[in-house]
Parts: sequence; structure tokens; C-alpha cells
Amino acid sequence: MAMNLAHFEIGRRRRWGLVKGDAIAPLDQEYPTTAALIEHGETGWIAASGRAASVSLADVTLLSPVTAPARILCQGANYRQHMIESGMDPDEKTFNMFFEKADCSLNAPRGTVRKPPHVRLLDYEIELALVFRKAITAPVTVTEATLSEYVFAIAIANDVSARDIQIPQTQFFKGKSYRGFCPMGPYLTVLEPEEFHYLDRLDLSLSVNGAERQRDTTRNLVFKPAETITELSTFSDIAPGDVLLTGTPSGCALRVPPPALRKLMQLVLPEKKLWAAFERTQSRRPQYLKAGDVVTARIKSPDGIIDLGEQRVTISA
Amino acid sequence: MAMNLAHFEIGRRRRWGLVKGDAIAPLDQEYPTTAALIEHGETGWIAASGRAASVSLADVTLLSPVTAPARILCQGANYRQHMIESGMDPDEKTFNMFFEKADCSLNAPRGTVRKPPHVRLLDYEIELALVFRKAITAPVTVTEATLSEYVFAIAIANDVSARDIQIPQTQFFKGKSYRGFCPMGPYLTVLEPEEFHYLDRLDLSLSVNGAERQRDTTRNLVFKPAETITELSTFSDIAPGDVLLTGTPSGCALRVPPPALRKLMQLVLPEKKLWAAFERTQSRRPQYLKAGDVVTARIKSPDGIIDLGEQRVTISA
Repeated sequence: MAMNLAHFEIGRRRRWGLVKGDAIAPLDQEYPTTAALIEHGETGWIAASGRAASVSLADVTLLSPVTAPARILCQGANYRQHMIESGMDPDEKTFNMFFEKADCSLNAPRGTVRKPPHVRLLDYEIELALVFRKAITAPVTVTEATLSEYVFAIAIANDVSARDIQIPQTQFFKGKSYRGFCPMGPYLTVLEPEEFHYLDRLDLSLSVNGAERQRDTTRNLVFKPAETITELSTFSDIAPGDVLLTGTPSGCALRVPPPALRKLMQLVLPEKKLWAAFERTQSRRPQYLKAGDVVTARIKSPDGIIDLGEQRVTISA
Repeated sequence: MAMNLAHFEIGRRRRWGLVKGDAIAPLDQEYPTTAALIEHGETGWIAASGRAASVSLADVTLLSPVTAPARILCQGANYRQHMIESGMDPDEKTFNMFFEKADCSLNAPRGTVRKPPHVRLLDYEIELALVFRKAITAPVTVTEATLSEYVFAIAIANDVSARDIQIPQTQFFKGKSYRGFCPMGPYLTVLEPEEFHYLDRLDLSLSVNGAERQRDTTRNLVFKPAETITELSTFSDIAPGDVLLTGTPSGCALRVPPPALRKLMQLVLPEKKLWAAFERTQSRRPQYLKAGDVVTARIKSPDGIIDLGEQRVTISA
């Protein structure tokens, strides 16, 4: 049965534990990294599963269950509706877009995301994160049947993005990499091999101050995990504890004009005026995040058997 | 005085050594990573500097002097002439473009670069690489005066790029990350603090089959190392042994149409036809690399005091 593992701080010590309801059964050993947990932790969580959960979740500080250093590999535009709204045809599946976030963006699941003072267009992106189990150092062919050999766990990620940097600079790396821009967790949800079919039917939802902004299902993922990892293995190595963010559904604060209008604007406006117009139009949208906003994100299966918990972060100035 | 350190294999052992003319004085200790060399190697290379160079360069296999795992951070469009040709105004310095290459791209300086079978537009980019000395985990202000605290060494890098993937997919990560796409070295050139002024006056040149394709000087770098590392520190952590590629001068195989024509084509052509036209036009350019081509790259100061050696790789099918 799927289990949720938490990484937490209690009494200035960093521990891992098995989540049971509102409490945690801590593992005996301490593991400094997610990779060490993956490699050595199995006897620990089996032992913990037989014990009572002795620590209340309310008494701990949850940490990112993905530790740095780690590769944070990302897919762009990977949900059908999001692609259609961006002027792309999801059935063409022209290419699977990859980029990276810096690992200094990793953040706790119940803390704060600091808005850098110069960033004006701060946006949210709920994503299903896959945490890798084993190293990949050469091209591999991953199938639905072998996916569980490669994926250790799944988690909620928020791919926080400074749109006023990401979009005009065209390369996504900087605008998505500021420290704190990747709240992760609350948990690592470790699936049994026979539960991996759930990867294709998880419901994602994200709210800001209680109002729902994003809702979709992983059934609408255009490039699925097995084919994506197969492609990724042709141009990136993977280490245990590295993570893949699988893209976000529609509903972000960012609104881009329809493709025809966008191209016309690019033709008639000089670069500087184009981006000034972009910022002016976007900054009128009240959906962009501001200090004090609370962003909650959930991922779970419709039958409730798989539940990745609730991520809840507050934006700070 | 600046010294050149080599990473090499001899008799199935991986060693480091100090280069003197055509020979190497090996360091006594073995260091598994560039980071270990930086942290523990100083007494080793001081000792080696007093010894005769006992190993001929001809008898060893040179390895990448930057070892994986490492962050390979890159700047785009950072030479004046290259920006002008791309329709940008270097004096505006609108933004410093950052992206990453996967570290599986790291490659030996005298070996082969394999052209993946599906890649049709394989291009070269000579770049000055800076290898970091110390960790950065928070924003720092780096100046000309403090640059030597952050930069351990410099090296030649070739940012090999699959243009038919990089350009249509817009994110540079995949098209620049294939295994072997980053020949590095031959050497780590370690400068004395009083030699760091040379960073602003190094000549770069790259030839294919003996014909020069790229030639420029680091004087024409638009965003200089100190300001670039300052900016980088605001959105990425750095570990010793990580590397920054500072961008490439003009002269690559890639030719993009002038901005006005490019925008007009984007307006009138549907996406698929646009990229088909791009591939068709580019594939007529004989400058793109093919199997058997030999790419040589050199970086040195005009007075010859700083000489990063010669990188020489052959393209294989």
C-alpha cells in the first residue's frame, strides 16, 4: 500500500518518518539526503510501519522531502488544455520541452516563498513531481511496466515563476530558480509497483486564498512519465533523489495573447516596447501573487487511496 | 605564475599533474573530483612544481579537467559582434541570458564528439570557462578585486549544440546537453590573483579542418565575470568545481535571418512550415559539423603568458 514519508525538523534534528494520519512514526536512522533515504531507508520504514506514530505533525517543521544537491528537471507545456490555450496542438506532440530549475529553489512545503523585491509578476504552477530511484547514465527505454524501477516516489511541487524575467529572457532557468521558488511536498508518496497506474489518474488542484485557480488530472498529461524518462535519458544523467516536474495545467496568472496577435505585436513593436506592453498588461491581472497570499496545492486519486497531502505556503515580501 | 593542471589517465589510473612543456609532473595524491583537487591539491602542485616532468603528454589520455557531477551554467549571446549579428544592441545590456547544460555533456579535450543519429545541424561554440573555487549559497557581490576568491581556474569549453533541437524547442537545455557535447580543457589554467586582469584580454580562436571559423577577444564580453557571478548568486548555488561558460563569439554555423525578416516569417508561416524552412535553409550551410571534421580551439593572451592549450576533437557518426 502507498505510504507517505515526511522529512522534518524536531529539536534541531532532521529526521524522516512514516506519516499515519496526523502523526509521524520516525525512522530510527537519520539520512542526510533523499538519496541516502532511498538507498538505505527501506528497513527503517518497514520497522516504522509496525510502530505507533509517536510524533504529532503539529509539533514538527516539515522540510523539503527532496534535498539539495539534486537535479530539478522540468517539462514545459505538458497538459492538453494549457497547450491549447497557448496556441499549440497537443495531438501534434511536436516536442517535449525540457528545462532546469536551480536546486537552491527547493523549499519547505509549509513555509514562505519570498518575492524578490525586483520581481513584479510572481506566478504559481502546481506540478506532479517524480523522484528518481536509481541512477541513469546511458539511454534507457522505460515502459509502464518498468517505471517503478526508476521512480521512487511522487510529490507535489509548485514551480514558482517570475514571469517578468522568464518570458522576456526566453530561457526559463533564471526566472524559475530564485531561492525558495520550488516548495516541495509535504510528503514523498511511495507507491507499490501495482499502484503505478495511478500516475495517469491523479487530480491536481491549486488555490490562492481559498479560491481555486488550477484543477486538472494527470490523464491530460501529453508526454507521459515513461516516454519522458526514456527521452530524458538520451541527454541527461540521473542520480537517486533527482526530480522531474511534469508540467502544470492551465489556470496560472500568466495570460499570453493568442498566437496570431502575439506574432503581430512582435512584428510591429520594438523589443523594449513589446516587453513594456507585456508587463503593463500582465500587471493589471489580479491573479499574480502578492505578499500575504496563501497558496494551497493538493494531489490525490479520485478514490482517495493515493493522497500526496496538502502543500500550503505564504508569499512574503 | 599561471600554471596548467591536467587530468589524465595512465595505466588505467586517473591522475592530476602539472604541465611543463610537453610533459607532466604528476601530483602524488589522486583526487577523484575537481572539487577534491581544489580543496586538497595545493601542496601537491607546489611539490610537483619543484620536480621534473616525468610523463610525456603523448603517453597519456587527457580527461575532462571538470568532473561530473557539476553544474554547467552558461551565458547566451555575450559577445558584442555576436549580439549585433543577432539583431541585439550590446550597449543596451538588456539582460544577461542564463541556461544550463547537463553534466553528462562533459567530454575529454582530445577525443571525439559523437553526432547523435537524429541530429542534422551540429554546431560548435568556443567559450571561456570559469571553474569555481568556493561555494556560494547566498547572494554575493563579486568585484574585479575579489574575483580570484571565487574563480579557481579557467579552461577552454566547446558548447556543442544541436541547432535543429535547440532553436525550434526554444529552451536550450536539451539541444546542448547530449553526452559528449561539452569538450573541456585540455587544462585547468590556475591564475595568480595579480593575473586576473588577463580575463579581459584573452584571444579565442576555433578552426574546423584547419580553417578558422571563430576569432575574438574576451575584451568584447558584454557581461563580465564579476558582474555575472554577482547576478548568478541571486538565483543559483555554486559548489567548488562547478563551471560557468561565458558565451561564444560570432562565426558559428548557425545563421539567423535579420530580426525584421524573422518576425515576418513567424507571422506568415505556420509553426511547422517555419521550422521546416529553418532546417532546409540551415542544412545548405556547409559549416555544420559532419563525421570526420576536426575542431581545434585555442585560448591565450596576446603576450603568450597565459595559454590554455589546444583542444582538438573529431566528430564521429
